Amino acid sequence: MAGNGQEGGRNLLLTLRFDGSAFHGSAVQKNAPTVQGALQQALQQVFGEATDVKCASRTDAGVHARAFCVSFHTKSAIPCERLIEALNAYLPPEAAVYDCREVPPDFHARYSCLGKRYRYRILNSRIRDPFLLSTAFRIPYRLDWEIMDKAARAFLGTHDFSAFCSAGGSVQDRRRTIFLSRVWREGEQILFETGGDGFLYNMVRIITGTLIEIGAGKRMPESIPQALQAGDRSLAGFTAPAAGLCLEQVYYEVPARL
Amino acid sequence: MAGNGQEGGRNLLLTLRFDGSAFHGSAVQKNAPTVQGALQQALQQVFGEATDVKCASRTDAGVHARAFCVSFHTKSAIPCERLIEALNAYLPPEAAVYDCREVPPDFHARYSCLGKRYRYRILNSRIRDPFLLSTAFRIPYRLDWEIMDKAARAFLGTHDFSAFCSAGGSVQDRRRTIFLSRVWREGEQILFETGGDGFLYNMVRIITGTLIEIGAGKRMPESIPQALQAGDRSLAGFTAPAAGLCLEQVYYEVPARL
Repeated sequence: MAGNGQEGGRNLLLTLRFDGSAFHGSAVQKNAPTVQGALQQALQQVFGEATDVKCASRTDAGVHARAFCVSFHTKSAIPCERLIEALNAYLPPEAAVYDCREVPPDFHARYSCLGKRYRYRILNSRIRDPFLLSTAFRIPYRLDWEIMDKAARAFLGTHDFSAFCSAGGSVQDRRRTIFLSRVWREGEQILFETGGDGFLYNMVRIITGTLIEIGAGKRMPESIPQALQAGDRSLAGFTAPAAGLCLEQVYYEVPARL
Repeated sequence: MAGNGQEGGRNLLLTLRFDGSAFHGSAVQKNAPTVQGALQQALQQVFGEATDVKCASRTDAGVHARAFCVSFHTKSAIPCERLIEALNAYLPPEAAVYDCREVPPDFHARYSCLGKRYRYRILNSRIRDPFLLSTAFRIPYRLDWEIMDKAARAFLGTHDFSAFCSAGGSVQDRRRTIFLSRVWREGEQILFETGGDGFLYNMVRIITGTLIEIGAGKRMPESIPQALQAGDRSLAGFTAPAAGLCLEQVYYEVPARL
């Protein structure tokens, strides 16, 4: 028996959407529904054998994705279009595969990833919106989104983000390059979008929490460069809750979406 | 004891948003969560006495609302802004009051209503969207929204809508005037919006089902004037499911929203 799932066959890249409120995060766990777990079960049903899936990222419980990428080797010859249909028949309704493509044998959803783009949705309203309960974080007091947008530019470029990550990560090098960091308003919603070559544990949620404190006038915009410089988590803001966060895109040299 | 809730005090008009997937419709029922039931319970908590609430419309289980209007008389002097907060503290998260205003004593949410506007959301995609499971109806085959939009104009004006209502209504006069009826596309979504002075039981859902059959090429646009003329339900299309439907606005002489 030579096959270990890495040799021969095809290497496939899947892109999924999921509502994070239905899962205990993306990475597989015992006794809790996870995106990776649900996908591996669906692959087991379709292929009739266990498949080792590599995920582009780990997302926390409650975090959503419009483009969650995974790759795996398979000896199955099922065409991509049919595989999408078959997997969606077995996946829970809160997750769906919408793209499948063959990639080179050495492609790896995590190691081949060039960057990611996230969006954080704030509902800036005194009154809750029943349609945004699990996809936005509500702030009942007024936020100045223009000050938040100006402050967000301080994250652009290459910095050590030690001040903007939670303990628990085993990462040594905490320098990351951010190429997109902006805030805008759509009606009662304030949106923050950021793109970078990589993100540390809770990094987008801590950046968002810091921007919210700035928008509320509780913190000065200058505190961002100061926190980046000092590398001290206590100089950054609170960790905004998972529900507002959505992984929007994963960048590869081979585009994950046409 | 002279007070029956109709005399003295104030007459208040509330506007609510609710996610219909959390309720068995709007009208109060025993042993099932309804919007009216939840609101009457919240009013009981806030006022300390039962309050008779008049609803602008009855919505079926699964139908949503961005502007559901109710009126009631109360002797309570709680200011409108505080009443909104108090009611939202007692309502389930899937419903929220966002407007409260005093109206003349003879105002009645149902009898004073001049018309309503509804929107129906179709997801025209082979693949489900986990974020639209309860707020859109998915059609996996291609719909021609431009033909649907042209066909939708046949509903404009005053017609007898007997062919476009379900059995069970006790209404005698089935003439209604439609002043808005259009279809457009937003990405993978096709939206139908209609406004009129009144709608019969399941009328918007049957109109939508008829338009979907036209967009799929299964029915000719001319079948709409034919069905209107004949007043025969069997000449119209299927009843599109509740989940795609949302009550967007209720029209009064006193505007329900500022």
